[in-house]
Amino acid sequence: MTESGHLYGVGLGPGDSGLVTVAAAKIIGSADVVAFHAGTHGHSTARGIAAPYLASDNPDQIEELLTYPVTTGVADHAGGYAGALGEFYASATARLAHHLDQGRSVAVLSLGDPMLYSSYQHLHRALADRYPTTVIPGVTSITAAAASVGRPLVEKDETLGVIPGTLSEDELVQRLSQSDGAVVMKLGRTFPTVRRALVQAGQADRAYVVVRATMEGEQVIPLLELAPAAVPYFAVAVVPSPTDSELRRSTEGSVERSK
Amino acid sequence: MTESGHLYGVGLGPGDSGLVTVAAAKIIGSADVVAFHAGTHGHSTARGIAAPYLASDNPDQIEELLTYPVTTGVADHAGGYAGALGEFYASATARLAHHLDQGRSVAVLSLGDPMLYSSYQHLHRALADRYPTTVIPGVTSITAAAASVGRPLVEKDETLGVIPGTLSEDELVQRLSQSDGAVVMKLGRTFPTVRRALVQAGQADRAYVVVRATMEGEQVIPLLELAPAAVPYFAVAVVPSPTDSELRRSTEGSVERSK
Repeated sequence: MTESGHLYGVGLGPGDSGLVTVAAAKIIGSADVVAFHAGTHGHSTARGIAAPYLASDNPDQIEELLTYPVTTGVADHAGGYAGALGEFYASATARLAHHLDQGRSVAVLSLGDPMLYSSYQHLHRALADRYPTTVIPGVTSITAAAASVGRPLVEKDETLGVIPGTLSEDELVQRLSQSDGAVVMKLGRTFPTVRRALVQAGQADRAYVVVRATMEGEQVIPLLELAPAAVPYFAVAVVPSPTDSELRRSTEGSVERSK
Repeated sequence: MTESGHLYGVGLGPGDSGLVTVAAAKIIGSADVVAFHAGTHGHSTARGIAAPYLASDNPDQIEELLTYPVTTGVADHAGGYAGALGEFYASATARLAHHLDQGRSVAVLSLGDPMLYSSYQHLHRALADRYPTTVIPGVTSITAAAASVGRPLVEKDETLGVIPGTLSEDELVQRLSQSDGAVVMKLGRTFPTVRRALVQAGQADRAYVVVRATMEGEQVIPLLELAPAAVPYFAVAVVPSPTDSELRRSTEGSVERSK
């Protein structure tokens, strides 16, 4: 009987190939099968990030492109959006299970970190109890965006909130008010609501929008300079530590902690 | 006139040298000066993580050990704890500024990520406006601990709370109740309070304590199996996504999203 292959959930970081970890690069270069997701257009951002580390000298390395059948809530499937997605997950799981059953190691690549809003999570749930599995954490867009802004996110006893922009305005205000530093993910059509919520929470004046963090075409824009009706794609909003903002406003050279 | 050197705030990740990014490894190997913090005992965890990437073949690479003068709130200094720390920060800043003025590049190494509860933040505030500065984000213990547990932290529209265990029990309960997934940092003597807060927030039964995430001697323990009076050092508490827990409890094979 063939011994099962090993499953790896591999975090690729926020976009710059340099922000892939040494361990992830090694697995990408040595796995028998490398799997990555792509939108309906068939273009995979994950593959682009991983490209420098793929085993280009090994013609036997297998690539599995997992192409989403739908990108919005509308689908041409009897079961609608959920039906189309469910079928996609089942077929992706079966394809990877087949490789693992043959004793091949399989690396599933995730933008950012595999345990944070990632498309790897469905596969993990379906496969991790059946095969030996290791998750390699990655740099998230949370701290990558803060690095691009150049401001600390949280210090000392502060709380960080990581909040999806898809929540209602009330929920956003509530969660922002409980956080000292915050990152609002999944901007886009949600931006007008997120902007209003940040204003209501009193955090808009120190907030930034980071578009395409660490990737080509990166932009860092003070939130209030973006039009309320703007739709920034592939973007997050960053609310840096209030301590940092206070210290920056205080006289330079006589930096004193209030605590 | 000598051109100023470049300052790098470099995230080292949670502890395993393999979780250093490719970009960070490159800077650690090429910087003229590598600076790292150490406790009063003089031992630097950061240096241990970075060791494989230091320019061992370059005898001119300078190491700057920044040794904290105090580790608790008590200090043998006229100005007390704050006075001792202030003096330490001023002297560390001056040492690094001197190198930068001489045109030397300086890499300051941070456990985890430089923008998240890190000792680099003081130096960043003092130096980033005066010298060209780049922050290299790192893998945090937040997602590293979730990877060790093997459970997704947040999915879809869920909110993640990153909460210091040093808050009061009421504050902990309040912030946990606003979060779907959560990581409580800075465990230790705070554990009994954090444990009570997790029970009150109804999250204790799916929570884990991860000790020394990704490092030698790592331990993953269901929270309720740790004695209420335990004092786990170098540890975080992880509350995985409630969606994940629900799906795991539901019948296997018929995984349906409620949303």
